[in-house]
Amino acid sequence: MELNDLTRMSGEWLRGTGPESDIVMSSRIRLARNLAQFPFLNRADDSVRADIERVLHREVSQLALRGEITYLDVNSLEGVDRQFLVERQLISRELADSHGSRGVGITSEENVSLMVNEEDHLRIQVLRSGLDLDACWEEINRIDDLLEQHVTYAFSERLGYLTACPTNVGTGIRVSVLLHLPALVITKEIQKVFQALQKISLAVRGLYGEGSQAMGDFYQISNQVTLGKTEEALIRNLKDVIPSIISYERKVRQTLVKENRQRLHDQVSRAYGILKTAQTISSEETMHLLSSVRMGVNLGLIDDLPIPTVNELFIHTQPAHLQKLRKAHLESAERNVARASYLRQRLAAANGSDRN
Amino acid sequence: MELNDLTRMSGEWLRGTGPESDIVMSSRIRLARNLAQFPFLNRADDSVRADIERVLHREVSQLALRGEITYLDVNSLEGVDRQFLVERQLISRELADSHGSRGVGITSEENVSLMVNEEDHLRIQVLRSGLDLDACWEEINRIDDLLEQHVTYAFSERLGYLTACPTNVGTGIRVSVLLHLPALVITKEIQKVFQALQKISLAVRGLYGEGSQAMGDFYQISNQVTLGKTEEALIRNLKDVIPSIISYERKVRQTLVKENRQRLHDQVSRAYGILKTAQTISSEETMHLLSSVRMGVNLGLIDDLPIPTVNELFIHTQPAHLQKLRKAHLESAERNVARASYLRQRLAAANGSDRN
Repeated sequence: MELNDLTRMSGEWLRGTGPESDIVMSSRIRLARNLAQFPFLNRADDSVRADIERVLHREVSQLALRGEITYLDVNSLEGVDRQFLVERQLISRELADSHGSRGVGITSEENVSLMVNEEDHLRIQVLRSGLDLDACWEEINRIDDLLEQHVTYAFSERLGYLTACPTNVGTGIRVSVLLHLPALVITKEIQKVFQALQKISLAVRGLYGEGSQAMGDFYQISNQVTLGKTEEALIRNLKDVIPSIISYERKVRQTLVKENRQRLHDQVSRAYGILKTAQTISSEETMHLLSSVRMGVNLGLIDDLPIPTVNELFIHTQPAHLQKLRKAHLESAERNVARASYLRQRLAAANGSDRN
Repeated sequence: MELNDLTRMSGEWLRGTGPESDIVMSSRIRLARNLAQFPFLNRADDSVRADIERVLHREVSQLALRGEITYLDVNSLEGVDRQFLVERQLISRELADSHGSRGVGITSEENVSLMVNEEDHLRIQVLRSGLDLDACWEEINRIDDLLEQHVTYAFSERLGYLTACPTNVGTGIRVSVLLHLPALVITKEIQKVFQALQKISLAVRGLYGEGSQAMGDFYQISNQVTLGKTEEALIRNLKDVIPSIISYERKVRQTLVKENRQRLHDQVSRAYGILKTAQTISSEETMHLLSSVRMGVNLGLIDDLPIPTVNELFIHTQPAHLQKLRKAHLESAERNVARASYLRQRLAAANGSDRN
């Protein structure tokens, strides 16, 4: 598999088939690991970085996982390709934007990515469609064990895994769930969710990680604490709170349907109509409209569009994806035209005729 | 023909087949006439009004015109039916809203309407699709002559035809052309047109006559002077100015296409998309969006929608039309839902599949 093959495919996590997938887009766990024999990256010069990359490139490539692993030398990728991997949730913006020797190993189903020389020497990530943190944990734990048979991690008996940034010390784990919460946004109830989550030390971010806006009403909820608790306890902590957010969103959706079905149906249906007919459209408006459409499909207000298509469109209409699809560098205005064209084509293909 | 038959049909003037019909919706001439043997209506009591109505009902019904004449007793019509006739341009709002004996004769093609006991005893109106004032004049002149064989009009050798309001004295003629000027509205050039028309004593009104807003970018341009010139001169006066407004609108449309085709196409296409998918929509928004769509069809930006359908939708989505179609009294919110439903159905029927 090469990077360009990815443009024709979609990650398993977009399939929208997992548990609670009307609201939970995906579950994700990542582990931060460092090799004991090397200094942390903020203390490593270019040649040390290269050495770390060489070791981990080999170890990552040799991992016996379900599905072939493709290793990409991120340093030699063009900007648009790095951005493409960020949009696809396969690498972090930090890995894309940093410099020097670095890479990523990706499985063919895009469930597993192993980033080399991000903030830590190694970042292991497992993604799943829907709410499935147990499966994520099972798989990432296995990968972590497999690697530990060949490398020695920086580890302290007292603190646990040592990491470049103290906020990751201990388990080095970040457990996160990407939720689609349009009804809580419409009714502004989302603020209450934020406040409740802060009190129990859970972080909320937008679709593309730290600092990113919650475009398309997607919220990524994750642990902030990594130290002093077991991985299982931290996962349980998140698992305990997610069901109440899900049922809150569902309750508000039902209230919206019950109290103002016509208006909601109108909003959803118009959003669909605009996506099917616009000739130029920004990424932001696309996310906003797709969010309405996604809720509409899940509420049965749109019946001719599969959820995986909607999920895919969120990702495939991002700037780098559009440029990979068109095999050309596109300026913002050109992307808006290409995005509209792509949406019309995909949505026309999804539904043979106009049934709404 | 009965009034309810009209709901299944459309006036000839909506066919959009006449000259310059990309911009000129319709041409209209009306003549104000009074019977010499009766006082003007502002001096007539109920029994005199009834006498006038009786005489003119008979004369109007016996007219030998192309197409059968249906005479409707407006006084006995329900409010929604009177409103329906106003929306259809077959009677004036004044005739709908006044009281006592009054009526209207309508030909089957809806080109001719003869209002009895509006402001004057008789108002003859001839409508044509596109720019065709000569045909209007030829027909209305013939009708006027036919009637004059049986009745004696109030006429002064010095002043001409005498009318209830001095503004109509002389020829009693109002010549008007209904123009669709969306590009001049978008670019705000329309103000220049208004100023130029005022200087040459031409009046500008919205789609539904005096005091009505220019909904859907429709402007009705008509003479204000009725005295001291022949009918032919007054018609020529209007005919002389219309071509320059038409070419102005066309020029601005072409400039919009040339300088920002994408944006215009986007606006037009989204308008179409919303009309095809909205679940609730006001009359005002409908007119606004249909205006974009109408321009889009005429500029070739929409290729699967016939102009007569667009023209019809402007009229058929009006409040009384919707209620007649649904055979029910509908409150404003219910009409918005019925309007959206009607639009979806008509636009889905107009184009088999989603080709834009």
